[in-house]
This record gives sequence, C-alpha cells and structure tokens, in this order.
Amino acid sequence: MITSLNPATGEERVLDVEETTLDQVAAICELAHRATSELATRSLTWRGSMLRAMADALEESGESIIAAADFETALGRARLKGELRRTAFQLRFFADVVEDTTFLAASIDHATDSPMGPLADMRRLRVPLGAVAVFGSSNFPLAFSVPGGDTASALAAGCAVVVKAHPAHPHTSALCAAALREGARRVGAPEGTLEVVYGFAAGTALVTDANIAAVGFTGSLFAGQALWRLANERPVPIPFYGELGSANPLVVTPSAARVRAREIGAGAAGSMTLGVGQFCTKPGLLFVPEGSDGDALVNALVESLVATSTFTMLTGGIAAHFRESVAAIAAHEDVVALVAPAPEAGTTVRAQLFGVDARTFASEAARDLREECFGPLALVVRYESSDDLFAALRAASASLTLSVFAEAEDPDAAGLVDFAATRAGRVIVNGYPTGVGVSWSMHHGGPWPATTAPLATSVGAAGIERWLRALTYQSVPEALLPAPLRDENPWGVARRVDGVLVARPV
Amino acid sequence: MITSLNPATGEERVLDVEETTLDQVAAICELAHRATSELATRSLTWRGSMLRAMADALEESGESIIAAADFETALGRARLKGELRRTAFQLRFFADVVEDTTFLAASIDHATDSPMGPLADMRRLRVPLGAVAVFGSSNFPLAFSVPGGDTASALAAGCAVVVKAHPAHPHTSALCAAALREGARRVGAPEGTLEVVYGFAAGTALVTDANIAAVGFTGSLFAGQALWRLANERPVPIPFYGELGSANPLVVTPSAARVRAREIGAGAAGSMTLGVGQFCTKPGLLFVPEGSDGDALVNALVESLVATSTFTMLTGGIAAHFRESVAAIAAHEDVVALVAPAPEAGTTVRAQLFGVDARTFASEAARDLREECFGPLALVVRYESSDDLFAALRAASASLTLSVFAEAEDPDAAGLVDFAATRAGRVIVNGYPTGVGVSWSMHHGGPWPATTAPLATSVGAAGIERWLRALTYQSVPEALLPAPLRDENPWGVARRVDGVLVARPV
Repeated sequence: MITSLNPATGEERVLDVEETTLDQVAAICELAHRATSELATRSLTWRGSMLRAMADALEESGESIIAAADFETALGRARLKGELRRTAFQLRFFADVVEDTTFLAASIDHATDSPMGPLADMRRLRVPLGAVAVFGSSNFPLAFSVPGGDTASALAAGCAVVVKAHPAHPHTSALCAAALREGARRVGAPEGTLEVVYGFAAGTALVTDANIAAVGFTGSLFAGQALWRLANERPVPIPFYGELGSANPLVVTPSAARVRAREIGAGAAGSMTLGVGQFCTKPGLLFVPEGSDGDALVNALVESLVATSTFTMLTGGIAAHFRESVAAIAAHEDVVALVAPAPEAGTTVRAQLFGVDARTFASEAARDLREECFGPLALVVRYESSDDLFAALRAASASLTLSVFAEAEDPDAAGLVDFAATRAGRVIVNGYPTGVGVSWSMHHGGPWPATTAPLATSVGAAGIERWLRALTYQSVPEALLPAPLRDENPWGVARRVDGVLVARPV
Repeated sequence: MITSLNPATGEERVLDVEETTLDQVAAICELAHRATSELATRSLTWRGSMLRAMADALEESGESIIAAADFETALGRARLKGELRRTAFQLRFFADVVEDTTFLAASIDHATDSPMGPLADMRRLRVPLGAVAVFGSSNFPLAFSVPGGDTASALAAGCAVVVKAHPAHPHTSALCAAALREGARRVGAPEGTLEVVYGFAAGTALVTDANIAAVGFTGSLFAGQALWRLANERPVPIPFYGELGSANPLVVTPSAARVRAREIGAGAAGSMTLGVGQFCTKPGLLFVPEGSDGDALVNALVESLVATSTFTMLTGGIAAHFRESVAAIAAHEDVVALVAPAPEAGTTVRAQLFGVDARTFASEAARDLREECFGPLALVVRYESSDDLFAALRAASASLTLSVFAEAEDPDAAGLVDFAATRAGRVIVNGYPTGVGVSWSMHHGGPWPATTAPLATSVGAAGIERWLRALTYQSVPEALLPAPLRDENPWGVARRVDGVLVARPV
C-alpha cells in the first residue's frame, strides 16, 4: 500500500492505493488509446462540456482535496485554495479554447490552378495526437499535477490522459482523479479518458508504452533528461515536452536601484521565498549594481529574508537536496554568504542568500553557480558596468523568465529587454516572475534547458498545440470529411478558406 | 576540388568548389547567427521582398541552373523546368505567408482581473528560433535543396540558413546559392543570410555547431536517425525536423477495382515510376483485392511497367542500393515476381513489381517487406477480405500519404478514410500521392517514421512553424515592445486581442 506523509509533522497515513503494476500500466494505456479514438468522434461542444463538468466536480470535492493536499505538501490552506481555484479556472479556460476552434488551424483550399499546374482540393486540420502521459510535479499538487495544465490542455486537444502521480501527494492525486472521472462520467466520456498510475516503475513503463503518443513532464533536469532519452529511444519515438528548470534572472538597472532599492529588495525576498522557493519561476539570480544603491537593495533583501521564519519543504528528499546545494554554494571560494543560517533538519529549511561579483560569475570557475537551486535561495550577482552585466547574463543559462527592473526613460531598459527576448520565454518589466497567469498570451516555456521544445508552453492557450498532429485531406468527398473541413462548416469553426482567414461565425 | 558527375553518361567535371573545412563551418555558422539577429530588426514587408527578390534571381539564372541540374541528376529538362517554376513559386508563396502575418500568432491580453486574481498585461509573439541548418535532398535538386521548402520557410520565419549541399548535385547547389545571394544582395540582406557548405564532415559539424538552432532534413531513415541523435546529444539539444521515408500505401476497394481496373493499374504504374520512383511520396505498397477485378488491375499495371524503358537513377550508389533491395525482395520466399527484369548496371535500372498476399504481409515473416524502397518498385498486396486488408494496413508503417481508390457510395470508403487519417499525414481519395502542392492546406509529414515531429510539415504554409519559438512580454512598456505587439499595431498584423481574434486590417 502507498503511504501519505505529512512533511510538516512526519505523520503517515496508509492509503487505499497500491503501486501500479506493469501489467496494469499496459492495460490502462490500451484503454486510454481506445478512449482517444472514441473522444475523436465527439463534438467540440461536448469536449468543452466535459472540461467544465470536470472543473465543477473538482470544486465540489474541494474541501477534501485541499485537506489532503495540505497534509501532503504543507503548503497551507490559503495557497491550496488559490491553487484549486486556478486549476478549476484552467479547466474552464481550456473549454473556451476548445470552443474558440482556432487551435484546429482548419484550412480549405479548393481545387485551383497555380504556376505549378493544377492543385487538387486540399483541406488541412489538426487532430488529437493520441493518448498522453503526464508527469505530475511535486510543487503544484493541483495546478501542475493530476488536474493541472498538461491534463487540461491534452483533454482539450481530444487526447485521453494517463497521469503518473507524484509520490509526494498520492492521496491528493487519487482524490483529484476521482473528481475528474466523476465529471467525465456526468457527460458520458468513455472509460479511460483520465487514468492515474503510481510508482517509479509505472512512470518509466508509461513513457515506453506503445499506446502513449506524447509525454508532458514538469520536474528536474536530471529526471526529465532521463525520460526524454527513453521517449527518443522507443521504436516509435514520441514528443517529450519537459519543463526542466530555470534560474530566472532578475536584473536591476542602476536607475531602478537608485529610486527603488528598498522596495525591490523586499519584493525580491517575497518572490524568492513564495511557496518556499519551490516554483519553477523562482528568481534565483539577482543582478544588482555595485555601489551604495545596490548595497541598499541588498540590505533590504537581507533584512526581509532574516525576518522570515523556518519553512517546511515538500519532502525530506527535496530539503536534503536543498541543504546539499546550499553547502556547495557556501563552499565556493568566490562566493560570500549574505544570509546563511545554520542548517535545520528534516523538511525544515531557512532562506539563504549568497553573493558573487559579475566577472567571477561570467568565468568558467562559476559554472556550477548557474544552475537552478530548488528552494528559498538566491545568488546576488553584483556588476560594475553594463559590459560586466551582459557578460554575466550571457553566461547564465536560458530560462523561463527574465525580469528587468528599470525606470521610465531608463537608458539601460531597451538593451536588457532585447537581450531577455533572446534568452527567456517570458520577459517581465518591473514585476516578479512568480505567479504564472493562465491566459491566451501566456508563454511558460523557454530555450533549453528551461524546456525541451522552444515553441511549446505548459501554461496558457497555446499549450494545446503540444498534443496535436496535422493532417491533409486531398480530394476527399464532402461526406467523408470531418465536420470542421466540410464546406457548410456545421461546427462553425474559424478557418482559412482559399488563403483567407475567416473568423468563427457567431 | 569537388567533382560534378553525370549519372547518365559518367562524365565528370571538376568544380571551383572545395569541401568546407570545419573551421569554415564554424565561421559560417557564426555569420548565420549574426545575420539572424540582424534579420530580426527588419520588417515583415522587407522580409517578403527578400523572398521575392530571391525568386526573381533564381529564375534569371534558370537556364544555367537547369543545365547543371540536368547534368548532375539526369532528371530531364522538362521536369527540372517544372521544379524551378515550383521552387520560385514556393519562395513567393512564403513571401505571402510572411505578409499574411498569422504565423506570428500575436496575442495581446491587457491587464485584467480573473478568478485567479489580477493578471498583468501579457503579449505573446512567435519569433525566429535562430540560424537553421538545412540538408538538401538527392531527389529534388531545387525544390528540396538549396532554394527549397526548408530554406524558404526558414527565411520566411526570419532565420538565416546554412544548407549542406547534397553531394549528388554540388554545381546546382552552388549556382542556386549564388542566385539566392544575389537576390538577398539586391534588398540589402545581411551577409550570412544564406550560406552553403559541402562535404560529409561539414554536415555533421553543422548539426553540432552551437550557433545552429534547428535542423531540417530530407533523406533516408538511417542518415536521418544518426543526425537526429547528434542533435539530441548536444549540450543544448535542438529541434530536428526529419522527413525520413514512407511506403505510401495505395488501397483499391473491390468496387473501384470492378469499375476502373485498367485505369488505376496504369495510373499506379505512372505514379510509382514518376521521377524514377525517387519521390518520398512514391506509392510503394498497392493493396488490391483478390479475384478477377484485382487481376485485371494488376495486369494493367504489369503491362504499363513492362512497356517502360530503362531509367537512370540519381547516383550509382542509389542504383546499387535499389538493386540490393530488389534482390532481397525477390529472394523472399512468400513473394512472387510480377515484373522482374534482369538487373542492369551502373545507374541504369528498370521498373520492378512484386506480389504478396495480405495475410503474409501482416505476419512477422514479412517485416522486411514494409520498408520504403527508393526507386521504381512497388509491392502488390492482394487481400481477400476487409479484415485481411485492415490487418495488413495496420502492419504497414505510418506514412506521409495513404491513397484510397473508391467509388461513389462505396461501402468501404469511409472506414478506409478514417483509418488513413490515423496513419498518414495526407489522405487522398482517387488520386496518386506523387505531386505535392505548395499551398496553405498542404501537410507533408506524418507519424514516425515518415517524419520526426508529428505536427511539422516540410511543404506548405505551416512549414514556417518549425523555425519559430514563442515569447511573452509581461508589463513591458509600449516603447520597448516589438512592433506586432504594440497597441497601435504599426505593422497591421493579425492578432488576438483580449481573447478575440482580429483579422489583419486592410
């Protein structure tokens, strides 16, 4: 039996859930594959109603889900209530995305002549890729786990989903799965539309199962690369969408440091400790000018961090790994400790802050300082000149986000925004990277190693694109075409007709 | 010095071109990287004008390019003139795609409240991915080589391109590169916008060069997989878009065989020998019913093939590989020879046809009969029942195309079209797969092993998506935003504003 563990108290609860056997994984994937075929026969309106029914059912089970998640993650009820709200919103948002129909990229070219000679009637559509495997993350027991963004976007694409539950919150995963399945049941979704598997071996089996067509993963670079390799080495390789880690540089210009040193210092402290620093968007590298303005900013940051209490991390393993990272950074000869309390034990940690100068950071000696450290830790990189700053920024890895704090008419702002656009998936001015809104315009991805696919996002409307493939019907009679490609447009989808984009009829 | 070889006559010509050294490759990639940064500062209108200038320059050099290509490929002037026309059309088509602006997927969400709390101003855009490496194919010296679809779509995306010239047509490659560069020069494109490298080692170096951000490849499964592995194993892995081979099943229903046996037999013979069977869309598997109607179809096919003369393949190596494949199929104990002339020598081959029954084809013993064979060869698979047909179709690999020949009101048509939609990138009714139109609705891709990325196409407007990444600007002041994301929309791009798609102002 699988055990649920409270990271704050050490209390254990035996669950009515077992690790999924390899035979069970195979049967579940087969079922998911069949469910995907069945889902393909349903309308987009039905698909939207399924996502809404799932959101409703999730909220109806909200109390028990939040209680389980609070027990298993120690993230606190307030945060978890917000996360549930966000997760239900996300399911309903993807219902909107489905009904918007643009994701189908439907296109009709009637037969015509061209400089290449006659062209046959061609009609293009995006269709569901197949059953999708989703790996739940440790740090968002809801929004990036069983009922999270990968699941919501894959279901929106028309794909059945098999989630590998994260071992840190099995009870939450089971309750969420039950809620989603209840929603699915209410609208008559096929069996296998949403399944959950438990255990390390089950996760590996999922990635290599012939009935799985793509993988969504949020987690560490190490685990992500191993699974990505498995996905690539299959007889039929499949897309692997991994979000693998990001240091999220935050740059403060000299002007901004002059005007807002204390405000930015305190704000950075809040962002880097939010959720115990267990966010993929935690600002881990803070680029601050040398001199008195920068000193004032760092002092404010230090004050705020010193004022924080102890934190409970998600698991003992994560806390142990955090302590190892802290020790390695502290031992680095070029690094100074700014906030470095003595290590706590178990799942308990305290916020940490280190400092280094930009030239050192840009040098080969500092290579190990550039990696993401999961938890409430940041490295302040002090720069003297713009040249030093850019050399250090270039040395940092590409990332999910890059934040620039600058004043109006700031002479440094444009260069930093342009640079950020080449190295990050989201460029933020005067804002902190934590807090990732679910919206049409969100991009939560970035160049390697932030993610494995530079066009893919795991948050926002475009997340649906990961779970689609494209297909052209040539000279296919109207009666044999899928609804979105028939001339009469029975589903009323947005589409391109003979090269001209035609908005959705209303 | 590199030598140009005439496959029809054996004549050799020494060219004023050398294999590119590894140092030269590195310098070229650095230049391409810088050119991509410079291209990002130009407008879409300018980018369209560059593609049109390239098309013009290509046509101006048309006579010498066609002469070189005819010498190097033996494909004949008529085919090559058509291919040049297609290639120039394709460059101009991508200028239209650029000016259409939809590929940017620009989206603006103004700051608002949501059930998740306040959402900051977010603006999303697709931007050029970086310098792109393109591997020219052997079988299309123009349309899938230096001035081909990968090059045109990558330039349209705003990426500089470095092409690895195919060794079978180095002179054609050099002349095309000169023409494209002349077009680029006329509109003031930066140096490095289009470069060509020569030699096997240069190709490998291209895939692993840190300044290359993605690879487009058309060629064999073997070479494609090797390069794909290289791309994945880089310190910073990059997307690899390979089109690796396809058997392109063609299915004739009993009704169609009854009504059009001779017409379909002759048509299939034409399609499988077009371009000496050296097309990625050559129909290599022909599913024909058992019985007299099917016999009549096969007889017509045999008659047409027997009437064909000898063919000259692109290279001696390709012809030798073709003969090996023919010998292997002929030696297969379950296969009958239908058209099996004695082997010719050198680059000369004759059309070949073999037969097998559907049950054997579906069995493990026939595994080696399912692979693509490049050249004028097809395997006729005779089926007795619909069950036998579908078992055999399921055993075949996924492919670029699947063609169904069926009558009006044909009871078998719907099931075949639906099946085809799960296994091919293009589903054709009553048409042959050869001849791939450049258009908005074309999809030239397919599930593995047809291509490495199931959403990607190497022909048609959507081909541009391979060379883009996405990016969100959060709370970025208007003055620091790229033009397509500014409220006033100075470039007049199509975009989504607060969730609503707004067509391009005209």
